[in-house]
Formats: sequence, structure tokens, C-alpha cells
Amino acid sequence: MTDQKRVYLFGNGKADGKAEMKNLLGGKGANLAEMNLIGLPVPPGFTVTTDTCTEYNKLGADKVKALLDNEVRQAVAQIENMMGAQFGSTANPLLLSVRSGARASMPGMMDTILNLGLNEAAVTGMIKKTGNARFVWDSYRRFVQMYGEVVLGMKPADKDEADPFEHIIDEMKKEKGFTSDLQLSTADLQELVKRFKTAVKKQTGHDFPDDPWEQLWGSVFAVFNSWNNDRARYYRAMHNIPEEWGTAVNVQAMVFGNMGDTSATGVAFTRDAATGENIFNGEYLINAQGEDVVAGIRTPLQITLEGSRRWAKLQNIEETDRQTEYPSLEEAMPQAYSELFAIQRKLEEHANDMQDIEFTIQEGKLWMLQTRNGKRTGAAVVKIAMDLFREGRINETDALKRIEPIKLDELLHPVFSKQGLAKATVIAKGLPASPGAATGQIVFTADAAEEWAKQGYKVILVRVETSPEDLRGMDVAKGILTARGGMTSHAAVVARGMGKCCISGAGSLQIDARSRTLTINDKVYREGDWISLDGTKGNVFEGKIETQDPELCGDFAELMTLADKYSALKVRTNADTPKDSRIARQFGAQGIGLCRTEHMFFEGDRIKAMREMILAKEDDMTARRKALDKLLPMQIADFEGIFEAMDGFPVTIRLLDPPLHEFVPHEEKNQKEMADELGIDISVVKERVIALHEQNPMLGHRGCRLGNTYPEITEMQARAIVVAALNVTQKGVKVLPEIMVPLIGNAAEFKMQEAIIDEVAEQVFAEYGSRIEYLIGTMIEVPRAAIVADKIAESAEFFSFGTNDLTQMTFGFSRDDVAKFLPIYLSKNLLKNDPFQILDRDGVGVLVRMAVEKGRKTNPNLKIGICGEHGGEPNSVEFCHIVGMNYVSCSPYRVPIARVAAALAALTHGR
Amino acid sequence: MTDQKRVYLFGNGKADGKAEMKNLLGGKGANLAEMNLIGLPVPPGFTVTTDTCTEYNKLGADKVKALLDNEVRQAVAQIENMMGAQFGSTANPLLLSVRSGARASMPGMMDTILNLGLNEAAVTGMIKKTGNARFVWDSYRRFVQMYGEVVLGMKPADKDEADPFEHIIDEMKKEKGFTSDLQLSTADLQELVKRFKTAVKKQTGHDFPDDPWEQLWGSVFAVFNSWNNDRARYYRAMHNIPEEWGTAVNVQAMVFGNMGDTSATGVAFTRDAATGENIFNGEYLINAQGEDVVAGIRTPLQITLEGSRRWAKLQNIEETDRQTEYPSLEEAMPQAYSELFAIQRKLEEHANDMQDIEFTIQEGKLWMLQTRNGKRTGAAVVKIAMDLFREGRINETDALKRIEPIKLDELLHPVFSKQGLAKATVIAKGLPASPGAATGQIVFTADAAEEWAKQGYKVILVRVETSPEDLRGMDVAKGILTARGGMTSHAAVVARGMGKCCISGAGSLQIDARSRTLTINDKVYREGDWISLDGTKGNVFEGKIETQDPELCGDFAELMTLADKYSALKVRTNADTPKDSRIARQFGAQGIGLCRTEHMFFEGDRIKAMREMILAKEDDMTARRKALDKLLPMQIADFEGIFEAMDGFPVTIRLLDPPLHEFVPHEEKNQKEMADELGIDISVVKERVIALHEQNPMLGHRGCRLGNTYPEITEMQARAIVVAALNVTQKGVKVLPEIMVPLIGNAAEFKMQEAIIDEVAEQVFAEYGSRIEYLIGTMIEVPRAAIVADKIAESAEFFSFGTNDLTQMTFGFSRDDVAKFLPIYLSKNLLKNDPFQILDRDGVGVLVRMAVEKGRKTNPNLKIGICGEHGGEPNSVEFCHIVGMNYVSCSPYRVPIARVAAALAALTHGR
Repeated sequence: MTDQKRVYLFGNGKADGKAEMKNLLGGKGANLAEMNLIGLPVPPGFTVTTDTCTEYNKLGADKVKALLDNEVRQAVAQIENMMGAQFGSTANPLLLSVRSGARASMPGMMDTILNLGLNEAAVTGMIKKTGNARFVWDSYRRFVQMYGEVVLGMKPADKDEADPFEHIIDEMKKEKGFTSDLQLSTADLQELVKRFKTAVKKQTGHDFPDDPWEQLWGSVFAVFNSWNNDRARYYRAMHNIPEEWGTAVNVQAMVFGNMGDTSATGVAFTRDAATGENIFNGEYLINAQGEDVVAGIRTPLQITLEGSRRWAKLQNIEETDRQTEYPSLEEAMPQAYSELFAIQRKLEEHANDMQDIEFTIQEGKLWMLQTRNGKRTGAAVVKIAMDLFREGRINETDALKRIEPIKLDELLHPVFSKQGLAKATVIAKGLPASPGAATGQIVFTADAAEEWAKQGYKVILVRVETSPEDLRGMDVAKGILTARGGMTSHAAVVARGMGKCCISGAGSLQIDARSRTLTINDKVYREGDWISLDGTKGNVFEGKIETQDPELCGDFAELMTLADKYSALKVRTNADTPKDSRIARQFGAQGIGLCRTEHMFFEGDRIKAMREMILAKEDDMTARRKALDKLLPMQIADFEGIFEAMDGFPVTIRLLDPPLHEFVPHEEKNQKEMADELGIDISVVKERVIALHEQNPMLGHRGCRLGNTYPEITEMQARAIVVAALNVTQKGVKVLPEIMVPLIGNAAEFKMQEAIIDEVAEQVFAEYGSRIEYLIGTMIEVPRAAIVADKIAESAEFFSFGTNDLTQMTFGFSRDDVAKFLPIYLSKNLLKNDPFQILDRDGVGVLVRMAVEKGRKTNPNLKIGICGEHGGEPNSVEFCHIVGMNYVSCSPYRVPIARVAAALAALTHGR
Repeated sequence: MTDQKRVYLFGNGKADGKAEMKNLLGGKGANLAEMNLIGLPVPPGFTVTTDTCTEYNKLGADKVKALLDNEVRQAVAQIENMMGAQFGSTANPLLLSVRSGARASMPGMMDTILNLGLNEAAVTGMIKKTGNARFVWDSYRRFVQMYGEVVLGMKPADKDEADPFEHIIDEMKKEKGFTSDLQLSTADLQELVKRFKTAVKKQTGHDFPDDPWEQLWGSVFAVFNSWNNDRARYYRAMHNIPEEWGTAVNVQAMVFGNMGDTSATGVAFTRDAATGENIFNGEYLINAQGEDVVAGIRTPLQITLEGSRRWAKLQNIEETDRQTEYPSLEEAMPQAYSELFAIQRKLEEHANDMQDIEFTIQEGKLWMLQTRNGKRTGAAVVKIAMDLFREGRINETDALKRIEPIKLDELLHPVFSKQGLAKATVIAKGLPASPGAATGQIVFTADAAEEWAKQGYKVILVRVETSPEDLRGMDVAKGILTARGGMTSHAAVVARGMGKCCISGAGSLQIDARSRTLTINDKVYREGDWISLDGTKGNVFEGKIETQDPELCGDFAELMTLADKYSALKVRTNADTPKDSRIARQFGAQGIGLCRTEHMFFEGDRIKAMREMILAKEDDMTARRKALDKLLPMQIADFEGIFEAMDGFPVTIRLLDPPLHEFVPHEEKNQKEMADELGIDISVVKERVIALHEQNPMLGHRGCRLGNTYPEITEMQARAIVVAALNVTQKGVKVLPEIMVPLIGNAAEFKMQEAIIDEVAEQVFAEYGSRIEYLIGTMIEVPRAAIVADKIAESAEFFSFGTNDLTQMTFGFSRDDVAKFLPIYLSKNLLKNDPFQILDRDGVGVLVRMAVEKGRKTNPNLKIGICGEHGGEPNSVEFCHIVGMNYVSCSPYRVPIARVAAALAALTHGR
């Protein structure tokens, strides 16, 4: 054990480690080594291995110190050599940084210490060396504070109390009447250091260590300890990172971008992270430290001349002013710039991906601090991947693998303008139920939404929760905001289907539809007030924010073609109208996997006929048939439209699913209206509404339970489908109807529906004197259906997993109510994900797999798909591929995501 | 094929068949053969085998007739011989009956033809022979009608139309101005026959057959055909009877009990079917046909002298009048009686069970028509089984097998007096939610129930549906009647737990609690009106009916001891109070399998403290703790009482389960009351009630989701359990607490609850300086829990199946709403049973089995039980035995049923 190498040196183009040694050196350590190996100027340093962390946890500080001592001293000596400075020297001190770095990235989870090596004596030396007393005393003040907090445990006892150091700073500012830290003089900083040390002595009983070696060991062990702090443990549990991996420790020479006007610091991207264009770009600040660039106190400057000119134009800055006030790095430090430019090319070529790099220029010398694959927008994801492919840098499967499918979402929805967003204030947060950006004036009812929209206003529909009655209002609104409901609440599901921005379950909203007010933290918003929604993040903003519509470029189409080339799963769409069907086909949907017929019953005269049917007495089948006869021609027209839009592709039509009470009004005013319309007494309406009421409608009288208790409903729908199919066939449209029976729990239920459909179909064929092919299948959405799938497959010709309901019933979670405890469950790590978003492989997935296996055992040719919301979620799509489904179906705007996810699944798991 | 025997003869003490040949001869045919073999006087006849039915279905009538012809003719000749009459003779005709008889009893499913062999000529002969023209013409009229309907298919075209023959009778009665069939003269009957035949000719185009042989073949084939009629197919599907079994046909000589005063007909029981006493008893009528005895037009007479005297005494009839007007068979026909007495002994000895026998005396000669095991009351079931065992006729396992466990229910609940019931009118029907009889005055609210009961009134609580708020009212009521809710609705479950009569889901009730009226079919009942409930059958009666309390005899206790000797499963009880616990122990419960703590929160100050807790703001844990501190001593006292009552037996305590909104009032008036009590504004109450509202509370924020989001609730309950256990242990009580976490869906949820409980327990142990043993386990009631049972079993020490909720979620049926379609589903055979009553082995059962297997794979010693309603249902108990559970738990009044069911399961499937 004592023989093993625990310390890996790097610097001056050499390194003991390399990129592949991530497990031993951590991500950061391996990367630092690699940058050295490819000849980049990296501040020299060394990495203590992750294995040493594990030893530390077993053996404790003293033993590990003994094991490390020799190697560390040798390594520090090497750094001293390379930097021409001495650790602990008063005249020319070497300062160090100490950072953690695990195998997997754990951002912000563990601790960092900067400026290590300072003490009163070194301060004097540093001032002499730099001539900048304030900079040195501020560095020392920061070091004492950081070391005090991280290594000596000087933290507030209670999270409500102030940090003890910040408390001291605040006191001094009070004494002096200062409002900002920047007002503190060098003497003030010196005084602060004194007070800090007094506080340390008082709380810990020990003097603050002056010995740099004591400081170094303290810091190394503090990083090891931070592996086991609460944050880190929690993060590991969340991300399945094993306890025993441990963290490495990176000790590196400090470099300073704030040593005067020949020093600078900056961040840069090898390509444009917003558009993906192959343009080097970035920002920097002269005489500044790293955090200053992102802190926003000073305006950062552009790195390239081209970028600087473009920026100035946008800001209406004259070229002469630009050159003097806001010069580019290219102009200000041409040599460092040209070195940086060459390095970024090298880095991108080495990584074969767009890089996000950090650098510091200390007194004219360029140091590279970090490089990593850069985060980018959805548009940039696609463009960069396709560019790299065309440049011959990666092949087509690699291009596909570069796409994080969910990022495509950004390409398909409006976004806020950058400028508008910068000025906007978030007033509430909710669930990011349906992506995109929307801005509009508040309305509180679906009726108001329609009225305002008719007059040309943009509106945001704000509701406690939505119901099918609100559909038309939702359709005309720019966005939807609800106080209740989860990611698969009515509002969320419908909005996603419409490709419309929606935030659901924003619990801090107090909505009073009667008085038309929305109250958030005591501030009242009224009908007509402007708000804006970011459905991708779940943020609600005050006021109007400009939005930009997305544009789909050729790269996108090329990527999609590539995806389809590799995927095994077909991608269909959930669409209820010809309009949705057309959108989905543009996105490449190969059929409809779910056409919900109930949405068709809310328009115009339809709801009236629907209500007539519902009001018929339990045993009055004649009255029900009469009402259904009115609906028949409308349903026929609906289906004709959809069949035509999907010419040549299969269309899965689900028979009526929701409980009937969703079609009747629940407020007295609307009940009266309905009674008047139908020419009956309101008491009749009320009685029926009460009779239809259910304690748990999700588990109630719906789905095939309707079709089996009122077979005439199924008869009407079956007739409409078959008639429509025959009509459009006569026009030359190719129709492939798949009739889907919802909520089946046993084979008998299915057989009864099948018999009704087949009988009606034969009648219609006889009437028309011609036939069409059609399939009858079922949704698997009740747990029992999965269990008896072998029996159901004796008759059913296809299965479609309704994983929304299957998740509800398997977990016993109502998607409309789950927002009450799901956030707490996620925060306490009782659940890793929202199972309504990512299919729960261990629970729901077991039933899905069981159903696929049992179904195919009975009928090896059984067609199997998914039409729950999961059909558009990449992780879930991967699971669908693994269990061997034939297709996934999702809302039109999710089709591209599903196509890429399907390709990636096939690339990972084989076709 | 042609060589095989298709016809089995019986008569005169001889028979080709025997009892064991049920598969070939059907139940009836085998029985007729057997009665002959033991020397009983049975009208001779023959049986056409079930195999012939199968041949018939394949080959058709003509071929089968050819195969049968010879055997049938020989058999008829034999009957002619034995009866001294000739088939088709005009002077001395032999008349036959033709009846179906399958392997399994299919009562009323198939057809029967009587008086076969009659025609105009035979009628003349018969009249000469009997001297009773009216009898003969009436027989002929009946035969033509029956044959017309069954063989010739003379049925109404639409079920709303009258039967064509009944239509002709009605017409004639109208012509004559008659009101009853009995007014028809011999000539009228003769005329009717003529009109019947005309109708047959008109509808079928053929003359009614006069040829007895044609009649015979027609009837035999009609019986074969009836195997495939809709009713029979439906019945077979319901009872899993295979298509290919076929029915036998029994052709038998007719005998007549209506040939004058030396003829009679009757039914008798070898023991008393009501009490089980070993007393021969029965009823008969002189000069009557079988159906007359049960038709109730004439008062039937008692068979034995003793029975006759007892009957007369009850009716206040003088002995002299009795002897002349109502003589016993023993007096009226002493010789036939003494033969009958000997036969009934013989039959009982042969069957080793109480027999229900039918006989006819034709002109002094006794004929036995039927014998079968007699139906009996629960009391008789027990007494007869134990008597037969003591008489040495059966052994103890046979005695156990004689018990249909569900019949024991009758022994444990009040019943209506026979006299009272006879006069009562059923005004509504509902679900038989909790057995027993109750009579009382209507009240519409739980408060009213308490007030009335305090003043000594007996009340029936009538509600649309009940909620936990109604508990105290339910407790004082004699019975509960609800308009909504299924067999496992709140009302039903609570009532069964209380052993209290309940009818739920009586849909025809219109209840207006505000105006205190109950309207049934336009008749209005008000508060204070008397009604009576039969919870065993689901009948609601108008007015007051006397009830009788059950008495448990020594036989019962003996039977229970016997049951425990053979069973493998232990039987525990679901009990929430010391009172229930004591009742359950009297019934032999060996512990508590489910103690629901929530019921404890509704009494007196508790609900106030509970509401204080619920009203605390989401993030105000201090306020919640304060309220919980008030509940703590009460919970401790509750648990002490229960532990003491269950001294030495395990007690499973379930942590708080229902959603919090069940504890807050939903009506404005009560909300005001609550606000005043707590000294807060009503708006606060309202706001909280709205915030707590859930779309699908069944799938909402409840069970361990409460304990995991508000850990302080679990802490309080855990403390109460451990403190109570320590307190009573100090008194010398043996405590075995099992703490049960409800609604677990994954292992993390369980582990978090476990950690809280263990931590609290250690605290309490430290405070007390002593420890007790306890288990922590979980309910398996969410489908996902069954799927991940192996993971859960890593920490859980026991599983208890909550099959109510598991059934709800596996089927997607809300037990509160299922009454809307379940009756239709049962009637359409979409479900064989109500899955809330009988555990669904094919669906829910698969999950149960999966959980048992996965759980035991992780922990072979895992203790497993069931605490859903199924734990007291015999078929489900059998399933629990099969899958290897350790115990079942059920409501106290179901404990004896479960004990016997457990024994039977062990006898059938091995221990």
C-alpha cells in the first residue's frame, strides 16, 4: 500500500496522468493532465488520487498524511521550480489553489480553497512583488474567510444566522458608514483580517494557522471530508454515484488576472453556443478575477474583433468609442489573443466538440484554467453536430449521439427575446408543463379568453385547474397557467398536445375567478394585466416580454432523416384534429397513435347533443340513440378529415373515454343555460349531475365501461369510423383505421366491445357494398390488463400502453393531485423522478414488460405501442425500444424528440 | 359407435346406472338410478346419456334417432310393463315426463315436458280410467301448451309481447268474464286445446302431433337443443361448465297426486332445516300436484302428527278441528306415511346428510320423485354436522367439510321474526353490505342519530353516503342505509366492522337531509318513520319488524375447536377499539391484524386537536407538533386498552392512513362551528379545506405519504405505541406490537418511516430505561408495492395485504363509485364476481402471489397476512392459504367464518 503512487504531477507540457485516468484522478485532474500533454499552458500542480480519499476515510488524517508526505513535498518543490516562486517564502511566495474533483461531475457539491500559502509575512512579500497592497490584503482577507469556513468549520450555527465573517464585514461597514465592499480601504481590509483571526481564535480555541504546510494539509483533508458532507451525499444518492468512488484533490499554482492592466481573465466558446455557428467567441475583463466576468458588476468585453464590432453595433456604440472604451482582446493583447485562438482550435480538434474554456492572463502570460464540452441551445446542438459531421470530424452515428433529444424541444417553440428576459421579474414558479414562451393579458375563464381573442387580444388563461369545458378557451390562449395539477394534469396534457406553453401547479397563485383577480404574494393582478410564461422552465413573469418564433433549418431535417435511418421504433402522434395531424406529419409522424374522440364533443352543437344523450334516463336507450344519431354525421366528418390528413398512415382512434360528468356543467349558471337549451327544468340537470358525481372519477365509470353499459355509444362511434373510412377510400385516400378500446381490465370486456364493433362494421359494409380493413385493439392502462394480457391478446390485434393511467394506478398517484406531495418526495429523494414524466422502469415498466411478453406469447405478431405522455420522453422511449414495442406515439411537438430518442435507443441497444 | 349403450333403464328396484355415473347420466339420472338400487319406489323410466347429447350436437337429429331408436323402444316397453299401461294406448295410456339433467346442477336453465303421450284418443281413455274429465283435459291443455312452447318454439316474438298460449287463455277468460283459470269448465279447457292447436298450425304450418312417438322424439331433442339455449350458455359461462359435457335426458312414467282423495303430494325433510333438530318433518296436500304445495293457494298440511299438533297450537286451532280439517299424513294415510318414514331414514343413512325429498301418492301408492341434500339455515348447518359427527355417521373432517362457512354469518347477527317478515313489504333494494336485521326510526344525520339514541330511541341512519364524520352516529344506530356506495364503501366497511346491519347503494332512494325526507317511488318517509333493513339480502322494508338476537350453542364452539385443529392460517381481526377487540377474542381471533388509528381521531376533543394540526400552515411544523402533543396522551390510552384486550396476542397498528380532508368539515355550518371552536376566522378554514381538496382522494395525499411529508405525525404515533406498550408491560400484560406503514409504493418510503419509528422507539426506551420487542412492516396495497416487494422486504418485517385498495388500483375501480356499473357488469357476465367481495385470483391474486414470492425470496421468514375485507370471505381465505400466508384478518363477526374457511382450505390443499 505504501508503494503505490498517490500524487500525479502536471505542468510545463508534462503530466503523470492523462484523460483516460478519470477514475483515479477525477474528471478535473485527468483533464488538467491532458491539457498539459497537448502542450497547453496550464498552471502547474498535482492531483492526489481518488483512492487516497478512500484510504483517508478508512485510516484517518494522520496515517494518510504520513503516506502522502513525501510525494506532496516533492510535487510542491516541482511547482516551485516551474513557477519560479517558493511555497512559504516571504519574498516571492507561491500561492496554491485546492479543489475537489470526482469521477463524475458534482458541481458545487464539494469545497475549494484559493490563495493558500498567504500569511502576514508573505503578504508583505507579495505587496513588494505586485505593488498592489489592496489586491494582496483583499486576497488574504478572502483566504482567511474561505479557510475559516471550509477547513475550520466557522459556519453559522443556524441557517437563519449570518455567516460569522460576513457578520464582521457588515459591522465594519456600519461603523464606517459604507454601503459597498469596494469602499473598504487597504487598512480596513487589514483590520478585517485581524478581526477574522480573533473570531477564529474565539470560536475554535486555536490561532489561525500561519504555516503554509499546515494550511495545505488542512485544505487537502477538508476536500476529502467534503466528500461526505450532506450536500454531496444527497447528490450521490440522487445520481447513483457510489460512496466508495471518493474524490481526488487538485493542488495548483495560483495565477492572477487582476495583477494590473497586462492581466485579464475570460471565458470563451469555440463555436457560438446560441446558434452553433463556427465562430470563436467569448468575453473577458482586464485586471479582473474569474468571478468578475460572470458577476455582472463590470461590463465584460468581447474577445474577437468581429464579435466586438457586432456587439457595439447592437449597443449603438461608435467605433471610436468602442476601440478606446471596449476594445477586443484581439486588439488589447494581440499576442495573448493569437495564442488563445490557436489553443481553442487545438482544444476543439482534440475533443471533437465545441469547447467552453476558461483562461487567465497574468502579466501578459496566458494560462488555461479549464476546458469542457460547452453547453448550448437546442439550435446549436443540431447545427454543431451536423457541422462536425459534414466537416468529417465525426461520423453519422456520432452526430446522432451528440443530440440530447430533449434539447430539440427548444427548437419547436417560441422563446423570449434575450433583451426582454434580462429585464423581467419572476413572480411565481410552477411546473414546466408544456414548453415555450408566451406573453399576454390575463383572463380567468375560457369564455373570456374567446371573447378577448376574438377582438384580437393576446391572452393568457389563468385557472385553478382546467377541465374539458375550457378547451376552446385554451385553444385561443397564447399560454395557460394553473394553480393546481401536475405534469400530466388536464391543462398540461392538452397544452402539450396543442404545442402551447403551459405552467401548471403554481401553488402560490390565489385565483378568484369571480372577482377576476390573481393574487401572488399580496400583489393583485387583474383581468387585462400582462404576464409572461416560460413553460420550459416554469417561470411566471410580470408584464409583457417579446417572444421569437422558432425557425427550423435544413440541418434539422437532415438530422431527422439520419435518426429514422437508425431507429427501430416508428414514431406516431397523439392528435385529435386534422390540424394537429398535419403539424405532426410535418414533424415526421408516421401515423396517429392516439386520437381522442372526446375532444370532438365540445364544439358547438355537439356538446348539446352529447348532453342530450347524457340526460337520457339510465334505461331510456331510445332517447340516447336519438342524441347519438345527431352526433354521428359530425363524428364521420371528424374522422374523414383526420384520415385524409394521415393518408397512407395508420390512425388509432380511441373510443369515448372520460366519465360522462365531464360533459355536463357543474356551475348553477351553466346548468340553467343547459336546461334552457334543452328545454327542460334545471332540476333534471342538477339531479343527473349529482347522479353522475364520482368520488374518484379516475377509477370510475369511464372507458370501455361506458361502451359496455351503453353499447349504443360504441355502435355510433364504430359506425362513424367505418363510414368515414369508406367515404375517403372512395376518394382515393389510403385508410388504415385501428379502433382502440380504452380501460380494458379483462378479456370479456374487450370481447364485448369487439363484437359490437364487428357487427356494426359488417352492417356498414353491407350498406356500402364494399369493405375496408381495420384492426381492433386495446389500451393497456389498468394494471390488471397487463396481468391478463395473454387472455386479452386472444382477441385484441394491438396493444397501446396508456402509461399515464397505468402510472396513476400502479403508484396510486392521482395526476391531478400529486403536486401536493410529489415535490416533497423528489426533494427527500423518496422518488428519483416524476414517474409521470419518466416512465418508472422498476414498477410500471415491469407491468409493461409483462404485458408485452404475455401478449406476444399469445400472438407473436401483436402490434404494440405506447400513447401515454411518456411516448415523447427520451428515457421512456429507450425503454419502449428495449421491451420491443413497434412504435411510440406522442404529441406533435414531441415527434422530433421521439425520433432521435428512438435512434439513440437503437444505437445503444441494437435494433 | 353404434355399439355403445345410450339408454340406461331404471325401475322396480333395478337400474342400469348408479350414483357414481353422474358424468354419463347427469346428476338427476344417476340419482334416479341410485334410488332404485336402494329399493325405493321410483316411477320407472330411462336416461339417455350425456354422450348422446354430444353426438346429437355433431350428427343432428336424424342420425341420432337412428342410433337410439331400438334402445328407446325397448326401454319404453319395459316401463309399460312395470306401470301396466301402454304408451300410445287409448284405453290405458302410459304418460311420460321428459326432463334434462346435466353433470352439474343447472337449475331452471333447460326444458321439461310433462304429460307426454296424450292426444284426443288417449284423453278419452284417461277420463274413463280416472273418472276425472276436468283433470284430464287440464293435463292435455298443459301438455299442448308446454310442448308448443318448448318443442315447437311457440314463443312471443318480442319479450314485451304475451306468450301466445297465455294470450288465448286471457281472451277466453275475457269472453266468459272469468277472473281465474279455476273458473274454466271442462268444456272450456277442451275449447282451449282446440284453439291452441289452431294457433300452432297457423304459426308453424304443421298440425300439432298426435303420435306419442313423434312427441317423445320431439321432446328428447328439445332437451338436447336446450343445452345450447341462451340461458344455458350464459349459466355455463358463469359457472365454468364446459360446452362438451352435454345434458342427459330423463324419460319417466308420470304419476299423479291429484287423482282423488287417496292421492297426495308433498315435500319433507329428514331433519329440521331451520334448527337442525333430528325431527322428520314436511308438508303435503291431498289430491294435488307438486307445484300446489309451494304455490300457497291451499294451506299445506303437516306430515307428522307431532308436527301437525305443534302447528295447530301456533295457529290456535283446536285439536278436534285439526283432526278433521288439517290431519297429518300420519293420520290420513297411515300406511303411506309409515312407508315414507322408513324411506326417509334410509335415504338419510344412504346419503349421510339431511335430505330434502319429494314424493307423490297416487291412489294410495307412494312414489319417490326426488331426494337431495336439503338446504338449511346456518344454525342447522352447524347442528346437523355436529350431530352426524356425534352419531358416528361422519368423521370430524367430514363434519368440517359439511360447513359452508358463509352460512355461519346467519348465526352471528339478529334476524327478523318469521311472523313479522311474512307481513312486511319490501320498498327498496340495495347491496347487502353488512348482514343482520335491524328495525328503527329514520334519522338523516349522525347528530340526530346520537340525540335520538340518547333518548332511548332505536334509529336507522339514512344517508346518501357516510364519511368518517358520521362514525358516532353510525355507532348508536341499529342499522345504516345509504343511497350510494358499493360493498366496500365507507358505510359498508365500517358497519361490518361494527357487526351492524347495513344496506348500501340503494339507488332508488332520494334523500334530502335538509328537509329530512326520504322519497322512494314518490312515497315520502320522514324523520321518525319506522323502517327495517335486512342487511343479509339487501331488502329495505316499510315499518317495524320484530328482530331476534342470535344464540351461539355448544355445537358452535365445538366446531370452532375442530376448525382450528386443521387450519394452517391463523385468524386475526380488524379492530379499532378495546370493545371490538374483546368481541373478536370471544369469536376466537388470535390477534389484531388491522387497528386503524384514524377512527380514534373523531371523538370529543380529539377531532379538535386533529383539526388544529391540519389547519397549521404547510411549513409550520411547530404548530403541528403542538396539536399532536395534545393527541399523544389519548392515543396512548387507546393503545393501552387494545393491548390489554389482546394480552398475549400480536396487535398490528396501522399508522394514519386517510387524507387529511376527511377530518375537516365540508358544510359551511360545520366549518363555522370549527372556526369558532378554534378561535379563527372561517375563511382560514375554508381556504384550508379548498387546499386539501383532491380530485381522486383514493390516489391522493394519504397513507405513508402523510407520514413522509409530515414526519411529526409518525413520530407522535410511534411514541404513543411504544409508550403504551411499555406501560401495559409494567402491568404484566404481554404485548406484541406490529407497526404497519400504509400505502408503501417503494422501499425508500418504507425506510424513511422505519427510521423515524426506530429513532422514536430508542428515545422512549432511553426515557423508560426498558425496552420491548416490536416489528415494523407494511401494507401491500399499491400495485407497485407488489412489484418491488423484494426491495421492500429488505427492511419490512411483515407484509399485510390491503386487498381493498389493491383491488381498487389493480382494476381501476373506485369502491365508492363502482356501484354505477358493477351490477351491469355482473349481469352481462363481464365479471364473474364482485372483486371487492371475492378476491380476484387472476388479476389481484397474481400481484399477491408475486409479492409473497418476492418478499419471501428476500426474507424467508417474512410474516405475511391479509387485512382487506377479503380476509373474512371463504374463497379468498382459501387463496390466502394456497399462496402461503401466515394469517388472515377480518372484522370480528367474520372471524368464525374465516376459521372454518381456513380449516377447509387446509383440508383441500394440505397444510
